[in-house]
Amino acid sequence: MSDTAAVVNVAEKLAQFSELWSQKTVAALNDYEVKLAKVKGEFVWHTHDDTDELFLVVSGRLTIRLRDGDVVVGPGELYVVPRGVEHCPVADEETAILLVEPTGTLNTGSAGGPLTRAAEALD
Amino acid sequence: MSDTAAVVNVAEKLAQFSELWSQKTVAALNDYEVKLAKVKGEFVWHTHDDTDELFLVVSGRLTIRLRDGDVVVGPGELYVVPRGVEHCPVADEETAILLVEPTGTLNTGSAGGPLTRAAEALD
Repeated sequence: MSDTAAVVNVAEKLAQFSELWSQKTVAALNDYEVKLAKVKGEFVWHTHDDTDELFLVVSGRLTIRLRDGDVVVGPGELYVVPRGVEHCPVADEETAILLVEPTGTLNTGSAGGPLTRAAEALD
Repeated sequence: MSDTAAVVNVAEKLAQFSELWSQKTVAALNDYEVKLAKVKGEFVWHTHDDTDELFLVVSGRLTIRLRDGDVVVGPGELYVVPRGVEHCPVADEETAILLVEPTGTLNTGSAGGPLTRAAEALD
């Protein structure tokens, strides 16, 4: 970070990509990062053993399946999945989300698999 | 945090208070917290020596004065003030912001003074 770090316009950043389930880093906050993603369909059940994970829904609707019930997060709403809690994000419609979590947190957590992707910087 | 942590509706939380420059904690993320505040007018010049500070503007418009120029943050935009960078938040109109920073970070940083307030939990 520097004094000249730019203002991040979330809508403009979202317009820069279309891939689903691919996290784009838009800002750093100490050793955390702010990421954007577009999601649709069902992801994989996974757990982050070492960190909570913040989801803020920008548009659309995100269902976070938990083993003991679903959490539905709409636009302007946020939810923190506690560390160690298995979850599976699902969206019926294309949904834009903002995530905050420690830098380097993988999207599939401890589950791994073909959907695993490191976050990419978005200019 | 627990499995039953609630979904946070930002607009509903903002409707629960009216004081200006008073940070309300709405979620925990590891040793960070998510806070909401309503601001209007000019705050005080201050620095957070140990942490970056994330501002996301929900409504209104926030000007973050820096010693080398102003940064203007509108709705749906975010900006991270780097640690050690002196800044002074200003808003001409009432502005609602979401902040993310380490738990216990004081609003006035190292400046102290009469506007210093610990964040309060918002049920």
